[in-house]
Amino acid sequence: MNIKQLLIGKPFPSSSAHHERLDKVRGLAVFASDPISSNAYATEAIMRVLILISAAALSYTLPIAIGIAALVLLVVLSYNQTIHHYPMGGGAYMVSKDNLGRTASWLAGASILSDYVLTVAVSVSAGVKAISSAFPDVAFFHEHRVLIGIGIILLITWLNLRGVRESGTIFAIPTYAFVFGVFVVIAIGLARYFGIFGEPLPPRSVATDETARSGLDNFGLIWLVLRAFAGGCTALTGIEAISDGVQAFKNPAPKNAIITMRAMAVMAMTLFIGISFIATHIPITILHEGGESVLSQMTRTVVGSGFMYYWVQFTTMLILILAANTAYADFPRIAAFLSNDGFLPRWLSRLGSRLVYSSGVIALAFLASALLAAFGGEEHHLLPLYAIGVFLSFTLSQAGMIVMWRKVAKLKPGESLDTGITTLHYEPNYKLKRIPSIIGVGLTAVVLVVLTVTKFTEGAWLIIVALPLIMLLFRKIKAHYDHVATNLSLTGLKPSDLRSPADVAIVPVGSIHRGSLRAIKYALKLTDDVRVVQVVGSEEEEIKTRKRWEQWDEVLGKAKLVFLHTDYRDYLTPLVDYVDQVNNKEFPGDLITVVIPEFVPDSTMAKVLHNQTAVMLLLALRKYEDVVVISVPYHLHYIPTGSEDIVAQKPAA
Amino acid sequence: MNIKQLLIGKPFPSSSAHHERLDKVRGLAVFASDPISSNAYATEAIMRVLILISAAALSYTLPIAIGIAALVLLVVLSYNQTIHHYPMGGGAYMVSKDNLGRTASWLAGASILSDYVLTVAVSVSAGVKAISSAFPDVAFFHEHRVLIGIGIILLITWLNLRGVRESGTIFAIPTYAFVFGVFVVIAIGLARYFGIFGEPLPPRSVATDETARSGLDNFGLIWLVLRAFAGGCTALTGIEAISDGVQAFKNPAPKNAIITMRAMAVMAMTLFIGISFIATHIPITILHEGGESVLSQMTRTVVGSGFMYYWVQFTTMLILILAANTAYADFPRIAAFLSNDGFLPRWLSRLGSRLVYSSGVIALAFLASALLAAFGGEEHHLLPLYAIGVFLSFTLSQAGMIVMWRKVAKLKPGESLDTGITTLHYEPNYKLKRIPSIIGVGLTAVVLVVLTVTKFTEGAWLIIVALPLIMLLFRKIKAHYDHVATNLSLTGLKPSDLRSPADVAIVPVGSIHRGSLRAIKYALKLTDDVRVVQVVGSEEEEIKTRKRWEQWDEVLGKAKLVFLHTDYRDYLTPLVDYVDQVNNKEFPGDLITVVIPEFVPDSTMAKVLHNQTAVMLLLALRKYEDVVVISVPYHLHYIPTGSEDIVAQKPAA
Repeated sequence: MNIKQLLIGKPFPSSSAHHERLDKVRGLAVFASDPISSNAYATEAIMRVLILISAAALSYTLPIAIGIAALVLLVVLSYNQTIHHYPMGGGAYMVSKDNLGRTASWLAGASILSDYVLTVAVSVSAGVKAISSAFPDVAFFHEHRVLIGIGIILLITWLNLRGVRESGTIFAIPTYAFVFGVFVVIAIGLARYFGIFGEPLPPRSVATDETARSGLDNFGLIWLVLRAFAGGCTALTGIEAISDGVQAFKNPAPKNAIITMRAMAVMAMTLFIGISFIATHIPITILHEGGESVLSQMTRTVVGSGFMYYWVQFTTMLILILAANTAYADFPRIAAFLSNDGFLPRWLSRLGSRLVYSSGVIALAFLASALLAAFGGEEHHLLPLYAIGVFLSFTLSQAGMIVMWRKVAKLKPGESLDTGITTLHYEPNYKLKRIPSIIGVGLTAVVLVVLTVTKFTEGAWLIIVALPLIMLLFRKIKAHYDHVATNLSLTGLKPSDLRSPADVAIVPVGSIHRGSLRAIKYALKLTDDVRVVQVVGSEEEEIKTRKRWEQWDEVLGKAKLVFLHTDYRDYLTPLVDYVDQVNNKEFPGDLITVVIPEFVPDSTMAKVLHNQTAVMLLLALRKYEDVVVISVPYHLHYIPTGSEDIVAQKPAA
Repeated sequence: MNIKQLLIGKPFPSSSAHHERLDKVRGLAVFASDPISSNAYATEAIMRVLILISAAALSYTLPIAIGIAALVLLVVLSYNQTIHHYPMGGGAYMVSKDNLGRTASWLAGASILSDYVLTVAVSVSAGVKAISSAFPDVAFFHEHRVLIGIGIILLITWLNLRGVRESGTIFAIPTYAFVFGVFVVIAIGLARYFGIFGEPLPPRSVATDETARSGLDNFGLIWLVLRAFAGGCTALTGIEAISDGVQAFKNPAPKNAIITMRAMAVMAMTLFIGISFIATHIPITILHEGGESVLSQMTRTVVGSGFMYYWVQFTTMLILILAANTAYADFPRIAAFLSNDGFLPRWLSRLGSRLVYSSGVIALAFLASALLAAFGGEEHHLLPLYAIGVFLSFTLSQAGMIVMWRKVAKLKPGESLDTGITTLHYEPNYKLKRIPSIIGVGLTAVVLVVLTVTKFTEGAWLIIVALPLIMLLFRKIKAHYDHVATNLSLTGLKPSDLRSPADVAIVPVGSIHRGSLRAIKYALKLTDDVRVVQVVGSEEEEIKTRKRWEQWDEVLGKAKLVFLHTDYRDYLTPLVDYVDQVNNKEFPGDLITVVIPEFVPDSTMAKVLHNQTAVMLLLALRKYEDVVVISVPYHLHYIPTGSEDIVAQKPAA
């Protein structure tokens, strides 16, 4: 307990929950860091594909980026409505659950969860890559990227276990530092490009170590452009985050969430377009994975390798790691929603002492580390898996919203409808409000298909395989809990249905000592039919033992001595068999009671020196559902020899 | 359980114990293999030292060997008396315990036990060496000797867990095969040497890779001769084995033991002298450790590298391993004696299902493997530690015997004396019988001193350090058991001293379901003061819960609802605190009862999906000595929904 407190701090009282929520500034840091951080690789992802067409094709980068930005705008508007109508959070999961039915909600849940696991793995490995780009000649970072990555994951996990607000505070500064840094670079870049000040940027020229494909037919061309677009869509990842974690915000949560989400979108897209512009108007080398990133090259060209360069590099690394932190803010929440609905283990919906879903946090850390290790910390291998989950949830949530709008459409002024999850009210201008969802669902669906097709062979198939399996898991878990519920349910239960204890108590004893006598005395308080059961190896042993018991008649009272004879060394089985027989033959259908004198060792020494047959018996009897086990403990005390009976001790609690 | 049976076989009924004992032939195989196997290195041990004086000095080998043989004779005669007077076995330990007092018996016990651990380590590593000598050019055996060694230890352990008799049978053949083989080699060797037949042996000539010390003064000379003698004394190791395990023999155990011991001594010493003779009359190369052994060279010279050579090599390896088996026959027995006296953990004195002291066998295997690994499987590094323990026990047992004879001396004809361990009778010719002990104790004491001094720096100091520590351990354990005894002792215990259960039962519940109702119903059977305790986070929660309980008034009956309010997520502590307070404030000095509805998961699925707060509570309450914990189990059954109460199930036992 004390170690735990030392690590994650003193427990928070539940009543202080609202204190632990995030204001807009912190909220932006926690949630926006994911989409903003995408800027570290989104542009590069586009260029990597375009270069396959030709160096000239790189000029498509900017238009594609603008197209993506437009898409982001639509999606954000759609999600604003989601937040507004589903203020409890849960984003795509809640929307699908409320409007598209269970299976859809499972699909949404599965894709959101797997996506957040990927977010952590991708972000962290990209973060590590950012460092190695800064020091291209230091092999260490690149070689040990997996270990470094897992180390970072553990760090973030630890901070998150300390509470949302605390981690929010810690992570706020670097986010803004990154945004500031990149803005400066873009500004200077533009200034130099348009000759406002400084010497003009070196003319565009592209070197590459990949050979451009010669003689592409139209299809090949479109194909590659689509791939480029899909690649750039990684810039959208994370923009839904806020809708999942609305309740992380201070009240009024939905309002604050919406404002933050818009701020975030504007910020992220400005950076995206800015980077895409500069990067396509300077000399750039597209390297294989592990080489220097485009952002790094661009910064170097624009501001040189001075302080500003390292500022950007360093904050890039930090923001990429913070993107992981966004997942930490959402994954446990979504997991908790699913757990409350009985699709995931119950304990995922229990708040820890610091009012975070600790088990969810730990689960995420575990899964992400495994993934990171499995993919050798190369984020370019992870990215293909990444975007699909996001777009699946985009499509589902917007589809869900459209269904929701249809419900709203049916409402007369003043009317409202309780869907069981949220309450819908009459909204005059719903026609206007649903437009983004309608256009959005189409576009995101298209992107989803493109992504799946283009990235299928690159690894996307993994997701296509994983999602149904995860959904199957949800289903199995749900089935189990339903089953438990019926089993324990009280419907149609008459008090008389409950088993009543039979008038019998079995006291298995090894030898006569204060412990066993204590147990017998206790048993006699329960019933008159007390059976002191002892296993013996021979007639002589029985006779000897009977003799020894004689002097304790007073304690035994009505209790009977039962001797079980065995010719084998194993004394446990005969006892269990006896209990079994009493349970099933003598008192079928009643609860029978076994009173076990249990020696509780106080020291490790004692643990080693006494083999705890009592414990073994306890475990053996757990199988029996109508056997109530009473353990009468006896401890040892370091008291002078020959003193009276064992005295009560305050446990070293 | 089934895996266990598969490995070590079906349990033996205790009544068949006598069947499991050893006849003389098997007994010899099990116990004599240790001293007989010493012949594989005893002669070499002498020569290794003598060569340091000069090649010529090797001619001392034979006289030294004869001297040692004489010593063996004395010791054996002395031990015959031990067996005769202490037919229960335990050798030096029993004798010292009966005649020299506790500390001496501890010393004896410590040295015997440590010696048996060494026996295993030494024998096995020597066995592995025997193979590598047979194939000097196959590096494998030498390189992996540690792993091979441990592998062999596991094999012997396994066989011994299957029972004494079974292992005796398995190990009989190789022992006799070795004895036969070496006898043949010696016979042929002598025949060729004395020119009875075959071409005469090649003339003696000594090569060595160690340089002889030049210009030794007398002291140096004596020193080295003594060291040589001490080295050869390893031939004595194991001759006491039979006296430790007398009860392993069929009845009349002592008689059979004595006969076997004598046969053994004659056999072993004939081999020893024979080998020493031949080895000193042929060309020999004394190599560093790991090189070809003297026995191997001798065999090669006498019978060539044919079938007979490999016969001897192979059986040598086997016998060396069997020497380890002797330790397996004795260590657990001695350990059991010490455990019965409360100097070692009790479980060491429990027979396993195959009527062997399984825990002792396993303990031995563990310790020996550790030692073997620690010394890199080089038996020459282990030998110095080895002999000391043996001679300590020799000296102690013979000293003990002398004291015993003094007691016997006091007895008149027809008189007899019960020492509490054995019964001594009047013996007319005790004067004669005690002679071997009297001479023996002197000689073994001298050897002990020589061994300690000469081998101190070679590693013997380890034993000198270890023995007192082991004795200290015995002492601590004894103290603990004594303490337990007083604690549980019934002396001066009036039945009224025993705590009686207070009229109260606490039922902690998480929610209302069949499980908790079941527990409440059970509790009401015990007392009227039943307190159904529930932890809540808020007033509203309390009110809601009270409402739900109302419909179960009939079950609740006299039971009171107690609500514990907490503002923290941890629901366990409030419960424990409440119990604590009832225990120490309300009913100080009485037993109070806690009835826990315990969900027993039937599947791993269930284990994962339910966090078992009940179990955690059970553990937390173990601290309390006056808290009796009753666990009322409830299981899940795959029964149709809405059926009646949980039906009794036959457990899958």
